[in-house]
Amino acid sequence: MALDAQLVEAARQRLSAARERSLDLDMTRGKPSAHQLDLALPMLDLVTASDFTSASGVDCRNYGGGSGLDEARTLFAPYFDVAAEEIFVLGNSSLQLMYDVLLQAVLRGVPGGSGPWSGGKILAPSPGYDRHFHLADFLGFEVVPVPMTDHGPDMEAVARLTADDESVRAIFCVPRYSNPTGCVYSEETVRALAAMKTAAPDFRIVWDNAYSVHHLVDEPVPLANLLRECESAGHADRALMFGSTSKISFAGAGVSLFSASEANRGWFAAHLTSQTIGPDKLNQLRHVRFFGDWEGVESHMRKHADLLRPKFAAVGEVLDERLRDTGVAEWTKPEGGYFISVDGAPGTASKVAAMAREIGVKLTPAGATFPYGEDPEDRNLRVAPSFPSVDSLVQATEVLSDCLLVAAAEA
Amino acid sequence: MALDAQLVEAARQRLSAARERSLDLDMTRGKPSAHQLDLALPMLDLVTASDFTSASGVDCRNYGGGSGLDEARTLFAPYFDVAAEEIFVLGNSSLQLMYDVLLQAVLRGVPGGSGPWSGGKILAPSPGYDRHFHLADFLGFEVVPVPMTDHGPDMEAVARLTADDESVRAIFCVPRYSNPTGCVYSEETVRALAAMKTAAPDFRIVWDNAYSVHHLVDEPVPLANLLRECESAGHADRALMFGSTSKISFAGAGVSLFSASEANRGWFAAHLTSQTIGPDKLNQLRHVRFFGDWEGVESHMRKHADLLRPKFAAVGEVLDERLRDTGVAEWTKPEGGYFISVDGAPGTASKVAAMAREIGVKLTPAGATFPYGEDPEDRNLRVAPSFPSVDSLVQATEVLSDCLLVAAAEA
Repeated sequence: MALDAQLVEAARQRLSAARERSLDLDMTRGKPSAHQLDLALPMLDLVTASDFTSASGVDCRNYGGGSGLDEARTLFAPYFDVAAEEIFVLGNSSLQLMYDVLLQAVLRGVPGGSGPWSGGKILAPSPGYDRHFHLADFLGFEVVPVPMTDHGPDMEAVARLTADDESVRAIFCVPRYSNPTGCVYSEETVRALAAMKTAAPDFRIVWDNAYSVHHLVDEPVPLANLLRECESAGHADRALMFGSTSKISFAGAGVSLFSASEANRGWFAAHLTSQTIGPDKLNQLRHVRFFGDWEGVESHMRKHADLLRPKFAAVGEVLDERLRDTGVAEWTKPEGGYFISVDGAPGTASKVAAMAREIGVKLTPAGATFPYGEDPEDRNLRVAPSFPSVDSLVQATEVLSDCLLVAAAEA
Repeated sequence: MALDAQLVEAARQRLSAARERSLDLDMTRGKPSAHQLDLALPMLDLVTASDFTSASGVDCRNYGGGSGLDEARTLFAPYFDVAAEEIFVLGNSSLQLMYDVLLQAVLRGVPGGSGPWSGGKILAPSPGYDRHFHLADFLGFEVVPVPMTDHGPDMEAVARLTADDESVRAIFCVPRYSNPTGCVYSEETVRALAAMKTAAPDFRIVWDNAYSVHHLVDEPVPLANLLRECESAGHADRALMFGSTSKISFAGAGVSLFSASEANRGWFAAHLTSQTIGPDKLNQLRHVRFFGDWEGVESHMRKHADLLRPKFAAVGEVLDERLRDTGVAEWTKPEGGYFISVDGAPGTASKVAAMAREIGVKLTPAGATFPYGEDPEDRNLRVAPSFPSVDSLVQATEVLSDCLLVAAAEA
């Protein structure tokens, strides 16, 4: 790549200087910072030795309530814009629910299907979430990448892949502030997903709405309700919707959420009751008492946004300052979620990640955002700004920018 | 059955009188009572908004710690008499761990095996735990009953079933205070299970040690360490050991425990990391702070015993008073656990359960203690004394005794 030689030389010199400073910076994982977790701390004092009974009179210490505490179902129903009886509120991991649902599909099949899914394929809009890819691979699926656009997966590609191949069973979607690009699926995309013809009669959309309320802006772009769109299109059973409070309350001690059609809920409940006598209702009660109602959740998320906004801005500003008009990289400016996606010069992402690591800046491994770790252009890098301080982010992004410049020059 | 006519007539009259009283008594489920749950209440005040960091400095609110909090692993290692690095401390349901382990075995196979277990058989010492049977059936196993003795499963039957049939993959065991008979597996039984030759090279013992520390007596019968016995016998991978604090701390908000060989732990961890970023460490910290050390757990369990002992005694006394020397029934006098097993006259259990229910006394459905609900002699009934008050238990057991008498007379 032809670049201003002075610019590249300055970057090289800065990197040399940075190497001397023995940095130890980490932009790898989408973890809330301690300040974010502090926001929900009062929750820990709201269920006490003298006060552990729900408003409806449930002793939250004992067994029972397999779909979640009624008050928690009412509180979180707006997460998916569904009715309280359409939502399950469960343990601390929505990934575990996806794992369980896909495992059941592989082993036993889903409502409306003709049997187990074994040997199937699953579509993965890419760049996407590495844990989805690992999960699908672990369960024996072939994970098929689909290009991402600014408003969701390339629906032409999705339609082509699903139309004739009955072994294409499902698609992973992070519909709002997609990991890592931050895009929000347009209404057109959601409708197309709901309405498209699929060769598999039991096709499912694994709707991992992990960042449903995780806005950085005051007027978020709306997201269509997948369950309702699927109902309207005559495919009510196509939608399997997941969420959690891992990045609302506590990352390790939140609650998970699931919603789907009546047939899917019955199927889901049947295998749930085979494995547990109910979720931790004391923790659900903490959430109910702390948030109160949905407005409580939304105002809480505005406090998260206040903490996250300067971090996203810091990364964006350094990238802008160092790389604007160089043609070396493109990056996203998400309006919510946990990630910034950076595309360097083709063929340089692995090199950039290795260079940065050697200087003391950890990035998510190059390729992680694609199935099997294979970024066809070797250019995508995921930056997670939530956990480090603004100072650390500035330093780390300076290193990243200079690595992108030098690697592009050498490419 | 030839019974004293006066005795039977008196029972009939008492049942008529009981019918008038519109009873509503429930001896169906092994749920701790509110008084038992009260014992652990201080735990709820030990992790607060100002104090949520573990002794080793872990911010328990965030992601991570997939094997459980280190302090919790140290605390609960004596549950299985293993080292801290040999135990996982996880979410609130050990049944979920068994489900997951068996599901993985069905789908992918286990270490030392030749592939997935699909289409296999699993042995179920019976009478046994209904949820084990349901779980195995749900996962596609054929559930094969094996007779129970006073010191564990009939090992001759077990040896015969496992010796030649490679499709016999596993056995369920509740080794201490077995559900429902209350027997404790003898050292001889444990050694035989560990040492026996099995046609399946990847045979597993699903060791559901749910009542490990749930004694009613001061000097409990010892239980051999299955993992160590399996190691000694050259079958280290045979043991999969499960436990929980559901009946130590809170039934819905306890922690689950798993221990096994290094190979099994590696296998287990691989599918654990595919589905979750870690258990609820705040709840583990509550347990660590409340119990302190293993002696704390043991002294806590003595308080449970003080609450449970009068209940078990009340049931035993009524049965004794009403049925001693009648030949109508036999019942167990367990030294721990949650159940009393009652064997009525052959062919009468369904009738007794129906009669009692009609009078307002709910018993676990007859047959529930056998695979597929099929008690070959239709005589076993499970009584769960933990939840009702002593008064309720006396009334309910009086009804049960009279139903047993009348049904035997009519048989």
